[in-house]
Amino acid sequence: MTKVLIDCDPGIDDALALALAAGSRALDVVGVTTVGGNVDLSLTTANALALREFLQLGDVPVTPGSAGALMRQTVRAAHVHGTTGLGDVVLPAPERGPSDGHAVDFIVETLRAAPGEITLVAVGPLTNIALAVRREPRVVEWARDLVIMGGSYTRGNTNPAAEFNMLADPEAAAIVFDAGWTVTMLGLDVTLSALVTSAVLDRMRPLGRLADLLVPAAQFYGVVTADGGPAIHDACAVAYVLEPSLFTCVPAVVNVETTGTYTRGMTVTDFKLGDRRPNALVATSLDVKGFWDLVMGAYERLAGRLG
Amino acid sequence: MTKVLIDCDPGIDDALALALAAGSRALDVVGVTTVGGNVDLSLTTANALALREFLQLGDVPVTPGSAGALMRQTVRAAHVHGTTGLGDVVLPAPERGPSDGHAVDFIVETLRAAPGEITLVAVGPLTNIALAVRREPRVVEWARDLVIMGGSYTRGNTNPAAEFNMLADPEAAAIVFDAGWTVTMLGLDVTLSALVTSAVLDRMRPLGRLADLLVPAAQFYGVVTADGGPAIHDACAVAYVLEPSLFTCVPAVVNVETTGTYTRGMTVTDFKLGDRRPNALVATSLDVKGFWDLVMGAYERLAGRLG
Amino acid sequence: MTKVLIDCDPGIDDALALALAAGSRALDVVGVTTVGGNVDLSLTTANALALREFLQLGDVPVTPGSAGALMRQTVRAAHVHGTTGLGDVVLPAPERGPSDGHAVDFIVETLRAAPGEITLVAVGPLTNIALAVRREPRVVEWARDLVIMGGSYTRGNTNPAAEFNMLADPEAAAIVFDAGWTVTMLGLDVTLSALVTSAVLDRMRPLGRLADLLVPAAQFYGVVTADGGPAIHDACAVAYVLEPSLFTCVPAVVNVETTGTYTRGMTVTDFKLGDRRPNALVATSLDVKGFWDLVMGAYERLAGRLG
Amino acid sequence: MTKVLIDCDPGIDDALALALAAGSRALDVVGVTTVGGNVDLSLTTANALALREFLQLGDVPVTPGSAGALMRQTVRAAHVHGTTGLGDVVLPAPERGPSDGHAVDFIVETLRAAPGEITLVAVGPLTNIALAVRREPRVVEWARDLVIMGGSYTRGNTNPAAEFNMLADPEAAAIVFDAGWTVTMLGLDVTLSALVTSAVLDRMRPLGRLADLLVPAAQFYGVVTADGGPAIHDACAVAYVLEPSLFTCVPAVVNVETTGTYTRGMTVTDFKLGDRRPNALVATSLDVKGFWDLVMGAYERLAGRLG
Repeated sequence: MTKVLIDCDPGIDDALALALAAGSRALDVVGVTTVGGNVDLSLTTANALALREFLQLGDVPVTPGSAGALMRQTVRAAHVHGTTGLGDVVLPAPERGPSDGHAVDFIVETLRAAPGEITLVAVGPLTNIALAVRREPRVVEWARDLVIMGGSYTRGNTNPAAEFNMLADPEAAAIVFDAGWTVTMLGLDVTLSALVTSAVLDRMRPLGRLADLLVPAAQFYGVVTADGGPAIHDACAVAYVLEPSLFTCVPAVVNVETTGTYTRGMTVTDFKLGDRRPNALVATSLDVKGFWDLVMGAYERLAGRLG
Repeated sequence: MTKVLIDCDPGIDDALALALAAGSRALDVVGVTTVGGNVDLSLTTANALALREFLQLGDVPVTPGSAGALMRQTVRAAHVHGTTGLGDVVLPAPERGPSDGHAVDFIVETLRAAPGEITLVAVGPLTNIALAVRREPRVVEWARDLVIMGGSYTRGNTNPAAEFNMLADPEAAAIVFDAGWTVTMLGLDVTLSALVTSAVLDRMRPLGRLADLLVPAAQFYGVVTADGGPAIHDACAVAYVLEPSLFTCVPAVVNVETTGTYTRGMTVTDFKLGDRRPNALVATSLDVKGFWDLVMGAYERLAGRLG
Repeated sequence: MTKVLIDCDPGIDDALALALAAGSRALDVVGVTTVGGNVDLSLTTANALALREFLQLGDVPVTPGSAGALMRQTVRAAHVHGTTGLGDVVLPAPERGPSDGHAVDFIVETLRAAPGEITLVAVGPLTNIALAVRREPRVVEWARDLVIMGGSYTRGNTNPAAEFNMLADPEAAAIVFDAGWTVTMLGLDVTLSALVTSAVLDRMRPLGRLADLLVPAAQFYGVVTADGGPAIHDACAVAYVLEPSLFTCVPAVVNVETTGTYTRGMTVTDFKLGDRRPNALVATSLDVKGFWDLVMGAYERLAGRLG
Repeated sequence: MTKVLIDCDPGIDDALALALAAGSRALDVVGVTTVGGNVDLSLTTANALALREFLQLGDVPVTPGSAGALMRQTVRAAHVHGTTGLGDVVLPAPERGPSDGHAVDFIVETLRAAPGEITLVAVGPLTNIALAVRREPRVVEWARDLVIMGGSYTRGNTNPAAEFNMLADPEAAAIVFDAGWTVTMLGLDVTLSALVTSAVLDRMRPLGRLADLLVPAAQFYGVVTADGGPAIHDACAVAYVLEPSLFTCVPAVVNVETTGTYTRGMTVTDFKLGDRRPNALVATSLDVKGFWDLVMGAYERLAGRLG
C-alpha cells in the first residue's frame, strides 16, 4: 500500500481523481487537504467533504488550507467546473465536517510522523505545499515523493503560456520547484491525452451510483465525442502513483516564471541539463489505453462497493 | 499597558529595541518571535533567548520562525551586526530555551486570543508576518496595529533602492502591505536621524550592566562622533508604540516592488492618494530630542533593575 | 515578379535562403541589408557581399545595418554557423563592397519609393526593422508584407522559451509585432520540418559550383541522416513569398516577452482572438515535399547559370 | 564658444532653456532637434520653429525626430504645459519650416563632422539620442559631452519613482546610460531648486517682448509665491554647459529600471562605485543665486536684442 496525502481543489477532475484513489486497492489515503483553486476554498472543502462520504473514503481527515494565492489576485475556473465546482452534480450533504487545524500544519505533521513513507499528490494550486515547505523545510526530505498535476513544457491552457494550477499561484509553484526535491510533473503535455471519449463514457454509464457522479460531471466538463472529450487532468497524478510505468518521464530543470508580462506561471522546462541537477521528472507521454484500463478497473471496483 | 508582540532578528538595533521595551513601564511584551534576517535564524533565536534573560523580560515566550525569505536567495547583514549578530558583545548563556511551535502559529494564536488588543511590532524581514497573514487572514483584523521598521520613501541602504528588511523578503513585504490593514512604516527616512552620537553614548556609559551591552554594541554598529553615529533603527518602532507623537506620519499608498531589475524590495511610496485608500502611515519626521529622552529614560529605569 | 528586400545575417541558412531567391524566376531582390546576429555584423556583411557575387545576384545593393541588439547584451550563434558564419565554406573574395549608408535608411527609402510593392523578408534579429519602424512609422503602410523567420508558438531553440532571432533582440521583436501590420511568422513550428535529409543532400550533390556551397554548409549545420538533418529555417521565409500555399497560416495575437526571467524573447502566441485584431499570421504546417520541390527547382535553375 | 546641439520637446521649460541659450554669449547652438514628449512631436516641432524666430536664434536648423517612445505607450504632460505646449502663450507664426531629414541623422552627421567639439544637451525623452547611439555607436566618442535634464536619485515627479523624461522612454534612457560615455545628469534633485519665485518673476517683468513669453509661461507652469514657484528644469542643463561650477556633481553608476512594476523609468543611482566605472556625473546641489544671476543676465541681454 502506498500512502498518499492528496492536496486538491475539487473541481470535477479532482473528484474523478479521488474516485480513482478510492477505488484502488494499492493506495492508503492518509489525508485530504483543500486549497482555493478551481472554485473558492469554502466550496472545494465542501466538495471534498461530500466526496469523502459519497466515495466511502472512511475516516480520512479532510483539512482546509489556503483560500488564495501567496501573492496578488486570485484566478478561478468556475466557468469550467460550474459554480459549485462539480458541474451539475449534487452530492448528498455530508454528515461530518472538516478536521480542526490548517492544511499546512496537517501536511507538516503528517509527513513528520512518517518520514519517507508518504507521497504528496498535489492537483490544485501549490499554495499549501509552498507554505508547508516554508513552515518546515524538512518536509522536502520527509516526503517520499511529490507528484503534481500542473504546468506544461509546450503551451498553457488558461493562456498561451501558463497552465491553470501554476497561473493560480506562480510564486507558490516557484517555491515548490526550487525546494530541493525532484517534482514529478504531470502537465498538459500528457493530461490532454487522458480524454473522456464516448467510448470511455460508455464504460462509465453502467456504474450505478458512481455513474451518477462520473457521467454528468464529465459531460459538464467538456464535449464528449468519438475521438475527443474533456481531459481528466488530476486523475493522471493518482494514476502515476499507482502505475508509474504508464508514463514516460524525463529529467528536466523546471523554472517557474514569475516576472514575465505574458508568461507568469509558465513552467519553463529545460531538458538539456548540462551539469545541473534536475529538479523535476516531467511526463512526456502516457499509455492512454493502459491509463483507462487502470482507471476503469478502479471505478468498477468502487462501483461494486457503492452499489 | 499596551500589549506588543515583537517579531525581530537580533541584531544590534533589535537588542536596543528590546531593551527599550524592557525598560518601559507602558508596554506588556506578550511574545517575541524570531526570523532569519540580520544573521541566521539560529543566531537570532539564540540572541533573543540571551536577551530575554539579560534584560529580565521574565517569562515572555520566545518562538522561532522562518529561516529564510519566502522566495529565492537569502540576504544577510553579518558585516553590520557581527558574526553573532550582537557585534562583540557576549551575553551570558541563557538558561531557558525557546518555546515549542512556530512563530507563525504563535502570532496567529496570540492575536486570535485577544482580538483588538495586541500591537504587532516587526523589526526584521516580514516573512513571519506574511505567513501569518496567509495562514489566517483574520490576523489583519485581530491586530490592534502593525508597526514596522523597514523601507524608505527616498533611498535604500542595502542598495540605492531598497532598505535591508524589505530587500531581505520583498514578496513578504508585498503581502504585508497588500493585506488590508494600515501599516505604520518607520523607514530610513526617520530612523537615520535616531543616531547614537557621542553625547548619547555618554548618557549610556553610566548604566552599569546594561551599559556593557549598549555601549560596545553601538560602537560596533558604527562610528560615533559629535554629530553622527549609528542609527538604532529598530528602537524607533518600539518608541512609536510608546509615544506616537514623536513622529509625524502621513497616509500613503505603499507598493513593494518585486519585479524590478534594480529595485526589488523598494517601498514605492505615493503620498498622492487620489481616491485610493492609504495602506500605510509613513513616518516623515522624528522629534530626535524627545526620542532620546524617551529611550534614555527607559534605559535608566532598566539599568536600575539590572544593577 | 514579387519585389523583396531581404534583411539577413548570413549565416548558413541565410545563404541557402539567398540561393533560393537567386534561383527563383518570380522574385526581384531589390536589396539586401545585414544585421549582426548569427555572427558579427562585419562577417554577416562580408558573407552577404561574397554571396551576392557567388550567387550572381547582380547589382543588388548590400547595405550594412545594426551591429547589436537594441538593448543589452548580444547573443551570437557562431557555434552553429562557424566562426565565419558559413561553416567551412570559403567563397571567393567579392570584388565589390557594400553600399554607402545604413540599412535602416535603405529600408525606409526603398519602401518610401515604392509603397505597396515591396515585401520585407527578415530572417535575422529584427533590429533593423524595428529601427526603421521607429525612424519612419509609415514603413508599416508602405511595406506590401513582412515575412519573418523567427519565434515559435511551442518551444524555443536557444533556450526552452525563445527562438534565436527573437532572443537576439527581444525589444526589437516587440516593436515589430506591435507596429500595426500583420507579421507573417514562420517559426520553429514549421521550419523544424524543413530538414536537409540524406535524400535532399543527394539532390544537391550534382549541382556543380552551387553544390560546393550547399553541401558542405548543410553538413556543417547538422548531422544529415535518412530521416533527419539540419533545418534550413531562413529558406522557409523566401519559400513563403514564392508559394504561400505551401504553408498553413493561422491569425494570432503574438506578444513578445521582454520582462520575464526565463522567457525573454518568447513569442507568446494566442490563437484565441476574441475581439482582438490579429497582429500575426502564424505558420502552423508546411508541405515538406512541395517545399523541397520548390527549393530544388530553384537551386537547379541557379546551378545551370553558375556552372 | 561652446558648441551645443539641443534635443528638446518644447514645452515651457524647454522654451526658457532655449531663451537662456539665445541670450548667452558663450554658446554656439549648432542645431535644435525635437522629440515627442511634453506634447506631441508636431507641437514640439512647431514650438521649436516659432521659438527659433521669436528668440532670434538665426539660421540654426530645427530638425524633427521621434514621435514616440522606443517601446510601448506614450506618456504626455499636456496638463503641465498646456495643449500647445507653451501654456497660454501664442508666439507669432514662424516663416521658415523645419529642415529636411530626421533628427537622428542630423545628430549623427553633425557630431561626425566635428568630433570632440559638440556638447549634446538633451532635455526631453531620450529617444532621439538612443536611436543615434544605435544608428552610429561612435557618436559616443564624437560627442564632447552629454548633458541631460532628467531622472532623480531620490523621488520622481510623474510618479513616486520616475521623473517625466525618463518615464516617457525608459528603454531609451537605459540605452543612453549604458552607451559607454559619462552622462551628466541634472535631475529633480537640483532642478526642483531652480524655482521661479515672485522675486524672479519681478526680474522678468521688465523684459519687454521677452517678458511676453517668460512671464505667462512661468505663471501657467506653476503657482508663483514668495518662496516657491515652478521649476524651470530644462534651463538647468543649458546653465550647466555655461557654468558647471554652479553645480556639485558626483560620479555614480546609474541604472535605468525597465522591468519594475512600480519603478519603470527610475534612475537608480549608486554613489558607491566600488571598482565600477561611473557612467554618470550626477548633480547634487545647485547654487541657486548664481543660477538666477546667470539666467537673468542672459535674459536681459536677449531682451535688449528683441526689444
